[in-house]
Formats: sequence, structure tokens, C-alpha cells
Amino acid sequence: MADPVARAEVVRIHGELMRALTELQARSCAALEEVDGGARFSTDRWERPGGGGGIARVLQDGPVLEKAGVNLSDVQGEVPEGLAAKLPGDGAEFLAAGLSIVVHPRSPLVPTAHANVRFIARGGEAWFGGGADLTPYYLFEEDCAHFHRVLRDVCERHLPGRYSGWKRAADAYFFLPHRGEHRGVGGIFFDGLGGDLDRALGLARALPAAFLDAYLPILARRRDLPFGEDERRWQEIRRGRYVEFNLVHDRGTLFGLETRGRTESVLMSLPPRVRWPYDHRPAPGSREAALLEVLRAPRDWA
Amino acid sequence: MADPVARAEVVRIHGELMRALTELQARSCAALEEVDGGARFSTDRWERPGGGGGIARVLQDGPVLEKAGVNLSDVQGEVPEGLAAKLPGDGAEFLAAGLSIVVHPRSPLVPTAHANVRFIARGGEAWFGGGADLTPYYLFEEDCAHFHRVLRDVCERHLPGRYSGWKRAADAYFFLPHRGEHRGVGGIFFDGLGGDLDRALGLARALPAAFLDAYLPILARRRDLPFGEDERRWQEIRRGRYVEFNLVHDRGTLFGLETRGRTESVLMSLPPRVRWPYDHRPAPGSREAALLEVLRAPRDWA
Repeated sequence: MADPVARAEVVRIHGELMRALTELQARSCAALEEVDGGARFSTDRWERPGGGGGIARVLQDGPVLEKAGVNLSDVQGEVPEGLAAKLPGDGAEFLAAGLSIVVHPRSPLVPTAHANVRFIARGGEAWFGGGADLTPYYLFEEDCAHFHRVLRDVCERHLPGRYSGWKRAADAYFFLPHRGEHRGVGGIFFDGLGGDLDRALGLARALPAAFLDAYLPILARRRDLPFGEDERRWQEIRRGRYVEFNLVHDRGTLFGLETRGRTESVLMSLPPRVRWPYDHRPAPGSREAALLEVLRAPRDWA
Repeated sequence: MADPVARAEVVRIHGELMRALTELQARSCAALEEVDGGARFSTDRWERPGGGGGIARVLQDGPVLEKAGVNLSDVQGEVPEGLAAKLPGDGAEFLAAGLSIVVHPRSPLVPTAHANVRFIARGGEAWFGGGADLTPYYLFEEDCAHFHRVLRDVCERHLPGRYSGWKRAADAYFFLPHRGEHRGVGGIFFDGLGGDLDRALGLARALPAAFLDAYLPILARRRDLPFGEDERRWQEIRRGRYVEFNLVHDRGTLFGLETRGRTESVLMSLPPRVRWPYDHRPAPGSREAALLEVLRAPRDWA
């Protein structure tokens, strides 16, 4: 990153972002409640002992959504010891604010999906990070293409020329080296995005809504397709990979645990029901095997 | 650790340990199959691309045991990059050999249990590590006392005076800081055990059998107690904590993933079915709440 960012600039960007994210949290929850048509989001306001806090909103056990979380967090204070060397910048204090959305639908024919935007500042450094990705259990190619195209369009609108690098970054980031598998069919991922912070803020404000535009049509198309115990079992096995990624690799999850955010909010991303059978392998030629092929060799979907 | 350990000494100890563990693997599997009375252990021999390999033995979907694994591993070669700074010693090569036992019974009234012994060498350093711990879903105090007493006795027989430190080390190790909870009611944990390697080898050979003596009587006492969906649900929620511990903290699991052991063998410890409901809290005064109290404040059981 380039010149140091003035403290007043950090305060301004942070304030604008928080106003936008607060409204986006409410809109996202309203949209997901409407899709579900049954369960409602709970609201838990929490404070972090070291400074800051958040608003955790979770919907569970709905007819369409088995678990969905839309979390706003805004923490600051002294940099925790375990993070001092890992977090860019060199001040003793940090600030981290963001919104995370994770949706685990009940039907294995509807993908799990996730989006996140965050603004982090430490010393004279300030940057945005974020991303969105789609984790199908069964592959519908048109769904993947739609998801990626909506993300491409929002990136190109706000920061032209960055999309293809961020698509490749998502393929690199949402990856489980111990499985040799990607978590899903990817999306976008960016971190350390500084420079023109107002442009980055524009993207951060647009991404949550674009994510819903990318995801909800897929949910609508697949939610009423019939499925049985076999598909459900495969979904629960694949959700195990989601857990493995989040607990072993995901920066946001590990950052949340290290900064002692509220644990139930940090871990709201974990799927509601999961299985780990030993050495499960889908039958060659099956739809499950077809998914694995794509998870092992990412494609350009947009 | 003290004087450098000669290469010939490492080779001798390693050879004796592997002969013992190979037999202990077979005996442990036979004992667990007899307890289950239905399912049988599968056997997968695997090789590690960088050197060494192992024998993974897993039993699944039995009437009594939902999932049990008894894994022998014996890997060596160049120290992987990610481990170079973390692993004691300073050679470019390492050796790690060990046996891990994890039992996830079907009934929530029977605890999950785990034991592990390992021998690691790098450069002039060679040491044993290991441990055993009990993870109940419902508390039976006599079971906890029995488990701890058997472990105390085997430790005192082989390395008198070490037990109480290892009991406290287990309380410190099997702990989830983000939950403020211990994984279970503890047991023993030791690492970096050098010095008289023959005495340490004696303990490493005795521990797997002592673990079965500590655990199987508990399993026999509780396996036929009736339970319902509520107890099963609680078990699956608590198993989530087991996953969180193993994927975020457990040295053996992370070592296995970092050294690129066979993933399905490393992760055989993960429970077969797991739930993560948002912010679940047991009712005050319930048996579930009584367990949580013990998980938050370890006791001296022996």
C-alpha cells in the first residue's frame, strides 16, 4: 500500500461504510425472510470486551433456509497478541468493520452461498477486503455462469479491470489443500484493496446487494426440485468440507476467533447438520462425481 | 531436551515402537469389534509421497460404535516448509511414528474417547508425546473417576511422579479458548518427553492397552441405557465442539494435514454426524447444563 491514510480519512470511510452496511443488513434479512416465507431472523447485539461489537442476525429451521446468518461487526482496540505479526500495518490499535452473509438452504439442490465485505485499518494502513462464492452440491452450469456474471458486472462497474484477478484469487483462496478440492465453484476474493478508498467503498456498498442478485434467482429456480435421502446425505458430507475450510483456512473466521469476537457470531457460518463418513467416494459417472471434477479444476464461468 | 540422541538410538527406539504399535493396532481393533458385535474394521494401507505411510483402520455404522478409527502412521522425510519453524530440533529431515485411537459411540450416554502415542525425531532431538481423554455428553462421575485412575496408574507405573503434571497439561491442552470450554473431562497429555527414551517407550507401549481398560468398562456400563432424540441432538451439538477442537487446535491433526499425511486417515477422528445450531444453550438445571459446568471448571477425578 502507498501513502499513509490519515486518521480523519479512516474515520470518514468507516462511518460511511457502517451506515451503508447497517441498512444492507436489514435489507438482506428482509429479502431472505421473504424467500423463506416461514422463519424469522433473530437479532443479537453483542459487545466485545476489548472494544466494539456487532449485530448478529440468524434465521434457522425455515422451510427453505435451514440456517442463514447476516452479521454486522465493528470491532476496534488494541491489536491482539496473536495477530500483531499477521495483520498489515504497524500501529498498536486496529479497526475492523464488515458484513458477512452465509446461506445454508435445506435442499441439496440449492447451493450454499456466502458474501463478505470488510474495512480494516491499522496505523497508517487502511484497506478493504471481501468476496463472494457459491458452493453447490449438484452442478447446474447455468447457475454458476449467472452467479459469476453478476459478480463480474458489479466489479467492472466500480473498479474496472479488477474482476479477472479477483476471480482467480477466489479460486486460490477457497481451496482445501488437504483435499485437493476447491470449496465450491468460486466467485471473487480481494484483500488489501487500498488506494482510492472511495472507489473501494463504492464496491463494498454494492457487493451485498449484487450477491443477492447473483444468488436469489438460483435459489428460486432450484428450491422446489424434488430430492431424497441420498442427495441430502451428499449435501451433509460436502458441508463437512465447508467446515474444514472455515475452521482451518478462512481468514475471517480465524480473525474473529483471534480477536475474540462473539464466538456464536463468528461460527454462524457453520452448516446446521454435517456428516463425516470415512473415505466416502461418489460412484464414477454419478452427478456427485461430476461436481467433484469441477471442484478439482475450476472453470471460467462468466 | 538434553544431549543429542544418536541416530542408531532413534532407529532402535523407532523399530521397537513400531513392532509394539503394529500389534496394539490389531488388538485394539479386535477388542472394539468384539464390543460392537456387528461392524468390522476396514484396512487401508497408504503411502506418503514424501516418505513413509500408514495403516488406517476404521469401523463405521456398527450397532454400538458409530465410528471408530485406529490409525498407525510412520512418516519420515524432509521437514515440510510450514513445520520447519514449529517442530523442535534443527535437522532438515524428520521422523514421526504413532498410533491414534478415536471412538465415537452411537449412544449419547457413552462418551467419545481418544488416545494417541507418538515418537518424533529431528536432528539430534527425539521425544515421545501422547495422551488420552474422555469426552462425555452426559456426566457419570464414577466413569470419570475410573478413567482418570486407570491413566494415573499406568503413568505412575512407568514414569512415577509425572501423572499430576500430565493431568493438568491435558486440562490446558484439550481446551477451546473461543468457547471457554474444555473438550471433555480431560485425561493426560504429554509432549517433548525425552531423557530416558526406554522408559518413555515403556509408557508408549502400555498406554493404548491402558486406554482400553479405562474406556471399555464405561462403554459396557452405559451402552444399553435408553435415550431419545433430545439426547442425540445434544450429542451432535457437542460433537461440533470436538470438530472445532480438532480442526483449530489439535496438534496431531494439524501436523497430519501439514505433513500431507493421508487426509482421510488424519480426519478419521471427526465425528460421523454433527450439528451446529445457532447459539444453543441448555436449560438451567438440566443434565446438559451440569455437563457444561464441569467442562468449564475441570476437576481432579483420580
